[in-house]
Amino acid sequence: MQNFEFYNPTKIIFGKNNLAKIGKEASKYGKKALLVYGKSSLKTTGVFEQIAEALKENGIEFVEFGGVQPNPLVSHARAGIDLAKKEKVDLIIGAGGGSVLDEAKAIAMGAACEDDIWDIMQGQKRATAALPVLTILTVAATGSEMNNCFVLTEDETHFKAACFNNLVFPKASILDPTFTTTLPLEYTAFAAADIFSHLTEGYFTQKEDTLLQDGLVEAEVRTIIESMRILIADSKDYTARANMMWAATLGWNGLLNSGIGRYATPCHMLGHPLSGHYDLAHGASLSIVTPKWLREKAKTEPRRIANFFRRIFGTSFADDATCAEEGIQALETWYKEIGTPLTMKEAGVQTPDLNTLAASAHKLAKSWGMKDFSEEYIRAFYEKCI
Amino acid sequence: MQNFEFYNPTKIIFGKNNLAKIGKEASKYGKKALLVYGKSSLKTTGVFEQIAEALKENGIEFVEFGGVQPNPLVSHARAGIDLAKKEKVDLIIGAGGGSVLDEAKAIAMGAACEDDIWDIMQGQKRATAALPVLTILTVAATGSEMNNCFVLTEDETHFKAACFNNLVFPKASILDPTFTTTLPLEYTAFAAADIFSHLTEGYFTQKEDTLLQDGLVEAEVRTIIESMRILIADSKDYTARANMMWAATLGWNGLLNSGIGRYATPCHMLGHPLSGHYDLAHGASLSIVTPKWLREKAKTEPRRIANFFRRIFGTSFADDATCAEEGIQALETWYKEIGTPLTMKEAGVQTPDLNTLAASAHKLAKSWGMKDFSEEYIRAFYEKCI
Repeated sequence: MQNFEFYNPTKIIFGKNNLAKIGKEASKYGKKALLVYGKSSLKTTGVFEQIAEALKENGIEFVEFGGVQPNPLVSHARAGIDLAKKEKVDLIIGAGGGSVLDEAKAIAMGAACEDDIWDIMQGQKRATAALPVLTILTVAATGSEMNNCFVLTEDETHFKAACFNNLVFPKASILDPTFTTTLPLEYTAFAAADIFSHLTEGYFTQKEDTLLQDGLVEAEVRTIIESMRILIADSKDYTARANMMWAATLGWNGLLNSGIGRYATPCHMLGHPLSGHYDLAHGASLSIVTPKWLREKAKTEPRRIANFFRRIFGTSFADDATCAEEGIQALETWYKEIGTPLTMKEAGVQTPDLNTLAASAHKLAKSWGMKDFSEEYIRAFYEKCI
Repeated sequence: MQNFEFYNPTKIIFGKNNLAKIGKEASKYGKKALLVYGKSSLKTTGVFEQIAEALKENGIEFVEFGGVQPNPLVSHARAGIDLAKKEKVDLIIGAGGGSVLDEAKAIAMGAACEDDIWDIMQGQKRATAALPVLTILTVAATGSEMNNCFVLTEDETHFKAACFNNLVFPKASILDPTFTTTLPLEYTAFAAADIFSHLTEGYFTQKEDTLLQDGLVEAEVRTIIESMRILIADSKDYTARANMMWAATLGWNGLLNSGIGRYATPCHMLGHPLSGHYDLAHGASLSIVTPKWLREKAKTEPRRIANFFRRIFGTSFADDATCAEEGIQALETWYKEIGTPLTMKEAGVQTPDLNTLAASAHKLAKSWGMKDFSEEYIRAFYEKCI
């Protein structure tokens, strides 16, 4: 067990029929909110109306800011920041999936700081404050509802960057699994691929076994696999949706990586350029790169990969290298079964610009401290993903 | 998955050589602290001196308040409250095991409220505030370092009561496993029994399976069992001590019971009178009552007990009732191996007053909403524990 600090002050309100609580939570932080959301589906499902009513009942005025896209753009976040400043809102409420929550956090920070949000995200300026953020989650995947992280994509370069700052921990997040039951299976599969990646990148890149954390991660992975099996048969199963949702939140809230020491997120690094440049679902980019990255890793360090798959898929007790490869194939089969792509072609990217992708990934690798990944290596890697 | 709220704002600073950080953490909350501790061992081990130095370096004055006993008494907490008020301290620092941390929390609440702490704990008065609490943990067991709970024993009646209030979440807790390496194996076993109980009481008393939480609890239990195996061979093994410590913290910080619905803590209810009246170690009282309570429970509801032991001890795949009994015997064997008692006699209680114990437990059962436990039932139960 390596030294660590863990801190996570977000209040989780989990389950059915909790949406009205957003009013009381919001009233703790002010009188006027910016309500950030994505598509009009928030209105057609009735969620928007319920939020509006709960805020009204608690005397909270709000300004709407819709149109957040998957892989949210810096320009759109800037527009939200301008609106939040102009309207002098006290707090930000994000209602949607990970992209909406991420942009809500960016707006919360940008609205409370003098400097430009992208400059802050690039580390050129320092964040000094953020408005309070509340979230209402409608897609379980990114963990944004209970972490200090947000990701934006720069419009011109399609470069995706992440910012980690305790200022943007949501004060409270409402997690109602029923909001996710209408999510098409395809997007649920992308979510599952994202959660799998959050759970296992730390696991696969840490050097030593960690008895406790390994066991916790394995329990989470089993939950995702079993829940997807149930959802393929009945996409509205409440328990499976609930397990996916809570597993997703715990999967990327800092808990499971606490104590494992140095770890890296190479699959997110390699996936971000794909989703940033070709507007793939984030999870789709991860199911493309993950098996290929594992195969590379297993060439020199098969042990933890083999043990993981032995425990998860019950693959053979052959030597580590063989077992790791069997496990990777089982993972590929699982991705296919749930319906998330294994190649760029399957994801609809027919003519990828490998040089641009490699440059973008290499920039990210550098900024995340992954020195082992040269631009040439990454380009060759992407070639295997075509 | 049942609806739940989860909130836990304690900052954890985990690992070696972190003690000096107490100074900076304390400086966030004021200029003068009450340092609560138990035995003089805090001084002989050098921990006290390091704390004093760290506080001094950060300009924090402090007043000592030692002498906290295992199963801390209300009278002693009241003396601490008086001292904290008299000295007008800004914050409370508890350095020790669960008893010290619990009393530190009680003092923090009592010092900030007008009403008597025992009246508050009995629900006759309402807590309105608490001073900030910081903790330095030297025994891994109770989880007090990252929860909103404390337990005190009334002097005259030996009645043990628990108080749950978000005001007493520690602001920060320093968890250094090296502080626990000198803990004798006997006390480590008591700690393990306590952690086992925290992990499994919710598990055994919930009605339905919960895929995610069941798996997380099982991973934690495996960690405790494996860590004790290692510690019996080498009581100073850092990794095993670290795993025990973090597993203990996560075992009773609200996380693992979130979403499991209604659950009860009958073993703590039945154990508290034993430790309160006969000054047994808390964990010793739990290893006495737990197998017997499981055996009672398995008479009508063996399924979850059987499944638990199948997964943990690999007991047979016979019918549930048989398997539950096999598992309970395996648990008794484990308690014996680690060295914690199975009967009152083994714990040194030769002539227990069963009527007093039953009355005390029944009072607790009522206040914790466990209506199934009549005083007669409890008395008959204790008879099996002699």
